[in-house]
Amino acid sequence: MSMQWPEKVVFCEVGPRDGLQNEPEVLSVDRKIALIEGVAEAGVPIVEIGSFVHPRAVPQMADTDEVARRFRRVEGVEYRALVANLKGVERALASGITKVKLTLSASESHAKANLNKTPAELLEGFKECVAFAHANGMEVSGAISTAFGCPFEGKISSGKIMETAARMTDLGLTELSLSDTTGMANPRQVYDLASMARSEFPEVSWFLHFHNTRGMALANVTAGMLAGIIRFDASLAGLGGCPFAPGASGNVASEDLLHMMDEMGIETGVDLKKMIALARQLQEWVGHPTDSSILRAGTNADLVPLTAARKQG
Amino acid sequence: MSMQWPEKVVFCEVGPRDGLQNEPEVLSVDRKIALIEGVAEAGVPIVEIGSFVHPRAVPQMADTDEVARRFRRVEGVEYRALVANLKGVERALASGITKVKLTLSASESHAKANLNKTPAELLEGFKECVAFAHANGMEVSGAISTAFGCPFEGKISSGKIMETAARMTDLGLTELSLSDTTGMANPRQVYDLASMARSEFPEVSWFLHFHNTRGMALANVTAGMLAGIIRFDASLAGLGGCPFAPGASGNVASEDLLHMMDEMGIETGVDLKKMIALARQLQEWVGHPTDSSILRAGTNADLVPLTAARKQG
Repeated sequence: MSMQWPEKVVFCEVGPRDGLQNEPEVLSVDRKIALIEGVAEAGVPIVEIGSFVHPRAVPQMADTDEVARRFRRVEGVEYRALVANLKGVERALASGITKVKLTLSASESHAKANLNKTPAELLEGFKECVAFAHANGMEVSGAISTAFGCPFEGKISSGKIMETAARMTDLGLTELSLSDTTGMANPRQVYDLASMARSEFPEVSWFLHFHNTRGMALANVTAGMLAGIIRFDASLAGLGGCPFAPGASGNVASEDLLHMMDEMGIETGVDLKKMIALARQLQEWVGHPTDSSILRAGTNADLVPLTAARKQG
Repeated sequence: MSMQWPEKVVFCEVGPRDGLQNEPEVLSVDRKIALIEGVAEAGVPIVEIGSFVHPRAVPQMADTDEVARRFRRVEGVEYRALVANLKGVERALASGITKVKLTLSASESHAKANLNKTPAELLEGFKECVAFAHANGMEVSGAISTAFGCPFEGKISSGKIMETAARMTDLGLTELSLSDTTGMANPRQVYDLASMARSEFPEVSWFLHFHNTRGMALANVTAGMLAGIIRFDASLAGLGGCPFAPGASGNVASEDLLHMMDEMGIETGVDLKKMIALARQLQEWVGHPTDSSILRAGTNADLVPLTAARKQG
């Protein structure tokens, strides 16, 4: 059997949102802008720039409006922000962000803990979000959180995940992410669930979003690619996690994921060196070590210049 | 396409050798014995107990003779030790170890740096090792180091790896390991090289040995399984590395690998809880943090008792 690897993958940087929302220290607006502009300049095609949610819920994101208004746009880059209700969509539009992301947990307990609403209540609110967005020429993306397991309920059945996906597509969404909010996914499960998602919703552009809590993030990315998924989220320096998910730790580090893609000969369009420099800068700003193999050990190419040379040969 | 996952894998604990040989502090004989006996009691089928090499070369392994003589054997468990020459094989036999492992680097530069000998010179010496071992009813295993890249030479061609394998099988070995000495392997490369190895040497029992230097170890294990490999080395707590390989860091942690197998429903015969307790003990003994996701974050089952419950359901 020969393996079908994708020629290219689409990379989404979620550090400015998922990474920073869990930091005790709030980064200044200027630094957030530098981060967003930096990753776009490094060639990242999609940047999740922040979230328009209630400042009491996520104080780290309270300045997303100002960040969104001020950062310099790079032609061709997609900037999106997380929203939870109509107010968020309105704020996004007012700040010049024309793509928003709605998150629905596949687990009732997680939705309750995270947003104090049932999935059904959330969906009701999402309808007006989508209506407003589409009426204003905005795009809407969706994420299914706890898709690979819930810290309260354990594994969620694939039927439940597909049902959650159907609720999202019923709203008119054609782009969805399967999110491993708490780092519980394993590669066999990823392969199976991603294959099922693609087969049951062939019209949907699927993303995968992994945390490296139990060391399996890149194994899960690998399994996802083998199931035909080509869109992946990651966070610079491995920042991030979910404050409401006990035991959660960081997103898979962007530089670790991009380094693996480079080594596998899979195109990302992203300049790894620039991303490593940004990750190092970000680690300095947050002021603590983070889970990034590449920041610790360097790349294969650092180890041996010949490794880089062979790629041209 | 449906994925072919193995039903069972064979796990080899290399912590007492590859893990401890790089620690600045030498563990006492009693602690080494406790470690070896502990992993065997946890159900590990193969334990690499130490190495019979010159004490000046690896002072951490100078007491392997005493360790080997004293630890209590568990019926059915295979105990093996690393050797580099005839003297080592003789010491193994004298200490009651009847399986030895010979390592040949696929890279001339690495062999020179590691043992100050060319691969050809090493092979000459291996002949008498194998002759003595087989004459005395001992088994001999082989490892190909830098199989996925050399810190000095970069990527080694697959032809060179197969040639190295042929030199080892010519000696009469039927068990070989592809070793990612410096954590440079990526899953695509692993899949391709492992598939080639199995197809060119179908009579050989292949092992894979990964370090998690750049976060890809479990992705590489995943790719190895998909290529049909079912034997994997790992080291408790993620200890280990190669002192002569710049930038090297630890072996993939046994508990991380075993946790992934449990989550994937792949049988190992090993009690994960006992291994985690041993890993935690070992981390205390070496007195510094090590690269173990499970020691940091806990298992999925710790997070949610339901995750464990579903396995019985």
